[in-house]
Amino acid sequence: MEVLEAIYNRRTVRAFRPDSISEEVLTKILEAATWAPSHGNNQPWEFVIAGAETRQKLLSLYQEMMESGPLKNPALPEERKEKMRQFMQNFGGAPTLLAVTLPAPTMEVDKYDFPLAGAAAIQNLLLAAWEQEVGAVWLSFGANPQAKAILGVEEAGSISGILAMGYPLAVPPAQPRIPVADKIRRLP
Amino acid sequence: MEVLEAIYNRRTVRAFRPDSISEEVLTKILEAATWAPSHGNNQPWEFVIAGAETRQKLLSLYQEMMESGPLKNPALPEERKEKMRQFMQNFGGAPTLLAVTLPAPTMEVDKYDFPLAGAAAIQNLLLAAWEQEVGAVWLSFGANPQAKAILGVEEAGSISGILAMGYPLAVPPAQPRIPVADKIRRLP
Repeated sequence: MEVLEAIYNRRTVRAFRPDSISEEVLTKILEAATWAPSHGNNQPWEFVIAGAETRQKLLSLYQEMMESGPLKNPALPEERKEKMRQFMQNFGGAPTLLAVTLPAPTMEVDKYDFPLAGAAAIQNLLLAAWEQEVGAVWLSFGANPQAKAILGVEEAGSISGILAMGYPLAVPPAQPRIPVADKIRRLP
Repeated sequence: MEVLEAIYNRRTVRAFRPDSISEEVLTKILEAATWAPSHGNNQPWEFVIAGAETRQKLLSLYQEMMESGPLKNPALPEERKEKMRQFMQNFGGAPTLLAVTLPAPTMEVDKYDFPLAGAAAIQNLLLAAWEQEVGAVWLSFGANPQAKAILGVEEAGSISGILAMGYPLAVPPAQPRIPVADKIRRLP
């Protein structure tokens, strides 16, 4: 698959077939993630694969956060809430749940660099997954300190993303993008 | 170019030919960046292209930081310092200097999400650039509040990266990677 094809055709997937991702395919995807750049090539990322017990804990936390957050928001349309409820039953049936985690910083600049390197690794991961016909959704609840505790991440460490992954049940349409011209600012 | 080829063969480039990147090529690269995922598709990134005046301010800041930081570190080998001195004369002669910036958060979760989305956009940018034979180095001095001031980023905003970009003078060898097996942790 061409790199621009992967970048443009990758979609966030929230509903999965039950087929598991083989160890071979998952390793290939994670290996691509490790080729992201990092400060001085410090490669701070770690990939934490959640087994059934850990997944259940993360699911309970996620459900709690959704119930007390977006699902309580009167501004969100009911249709969108219904989709959230479907997904949060069991992470859309994703066979794989994994987190990209970062250790405690050793230098001041690591506080800044580590999470960014983790996010670059995730983007590599998402593109390599797409090339393998594997879809994913990048969830934000790694911001919650309880997620760190569940995943055994040091208090001063962080999580760049929790990903639900698997073979898409259906590929959603592209989400519209703001034209790049509106995103460019030129300084003298 | 195949997506895995771009991921594996991309190198961090610190020395550039003087040839400028055309508007057409730069726009293509930045457009690919906008196809990164973001929380609720909020697309928080902005691309700030530094003209001569802004570049000079950033260069002075960068030189100051290098002089008072890494170049003072007795643990760093002289050979590496020599390379740093070469690069910091003028960002390796890179014809383009740009920053990926994020506005002030509007919701609590944006503090977490915005910089990560910016980093994912940068990884797309680096891969799309590589496909166009354009190399780059992702610099970390966006962590410095003075860089935000120079780039007109709100105090509560952030910078996911400052990139020096151009056509490589030479493509450096691959930096070694920690085997992926040593980066995977499985939880019950």
